[in-house]
Amino acid sequence: MARWEPNARQRLERAALALFTEHGYDATTVAEIADRAGLTKSTFFRHFADKREVLFGGQDLLTGLFTEAIRAAPPSATTADCLAAALQAAAAAFTPDRHDLAPQRRAVIAAHSELQERELLKRARLASAMTQALRARGADDTTARLAAEIGVLAFSTAYARWAAPDNLQPFTEIADAALRDLQARATTLGADSGHELLAQPASPK
Amino acid sequence: MARWEPNARQRLERAALALFTEHGYDATTVAEIADRAGLTKSTFFRHFADKREVLFGGQDLLTGLFTEAIRAAPPSATTADCLAAALQAAAAAFTPDRHDLAPQRRAVIAAHSELQERELLKRARLASAMTQALRARGADDTTARLAAEIGVLAFSTAYARWAAPDNLQPFTEIADAALRDLQARATTLGADSGHELLAQPASPK
Repeated sequence: MARWEPNARQRLERAALALFTEHGYDATTVAEIADRAGLTKSTFFRHFADKREVLFGGQDLLTGLFTEAIRAAPPSATTADCLAAALQAAAAAFTPDRHDLAPQRRAVIAAHSELQERELLKRARLASAMTQALRARGADDTTARLAAEIGVLAFSTAYARWAAPDNLQPFTEIADAALRDLQARATTLGADSGHELLAQPASPK
Repeated sequence: MARWEPNARQRLERAALALFTEHGYDATTVAEIADRAGLTKSTFFRHFADKREVLFGGQDLLTGLFTEAIRAAPPSATTADCLAAALQAAAAAFTPDRHDLAPQRRAVIAAHSELQERELLKRARLASAMTQALRARGADDTTARLAAEIGVLAFSTAYARWAAPDNLQPFTEIADAALRDLQARATTLGADSGHELLAQPASPK
């Protein structure tokens, strides 16, 4: 029934996303996913702890790509360079052959509040891992946290654009543009000097 | 046994934090909290859905203070002004009489991975609510998301500093300094031009 593919993990992933889309996430069982993929339940459990991990298992890979790229950036790299390197490295997880899975995954998550929470949490963990990696290079804690938030925001913006059904642009280009855009906006927000008017405790004028 | 206090909610909160600190979060029951506060279980459940809400119930108040301050800022306020106004408004939740509860709360959460996840999630929701409020004022989506992340980061930095046991500075001053500091760093990160070196796909030089 299932089209043969060399990789059991990817067959299971495709089968799961198809079933989540057709019948809903809650109504889909692991047995049905394995069956649709032409594999056994025990094969499923060699690849995923549960059906939720089909949607979120890739985040560990992504965290690894991000943190390793930051670690491996040359000593002269600035914090912004490290973000750019991390986003470029993430492209390994967003190859053209995976493009058709992304809109399905996003739709399944958008339809389910518990999965949305899991997605938020994974992003918070990604930011936390990037913060650690930047601190390990000598960035102070506040700069590391700010840079990590900007990096995750660039990533999530880029992922949403890359995952759009009609997108043909590679992830690297989209991510690079998203990061530059955020850097420009960060400069504007940082330089925004109207701030004084409201930030001070009220005092007689 | 419990010292009389005018406010049942605050008595329950103090009793719960004392018990979480003494016996651990998991080992503490609602009945014990009510008993320590000199109140009944049904009074507890009029104020909190469960014991976890004792730790996180304040976040709804905080989200309300943040979003209302952004909504109410004058039409001339910049996005950065709105962040400053939101942080100043949040000070209403961090009055000196609550200062001794904060280190306890932080210690309970730090000791428990499920509670840490809940804290991350609440911050992600706070960012999301601020994004909506900034968009409602006409900020574009990317600027609103970036500003909200900077606002939440300023808030969490300020909260940690305010909650330090030896801190005597009011929340407003700490939050204002934290936001200015982040704005300055955002400018530096944004202007960081080493970026080009790594962000472009490798090409022959």
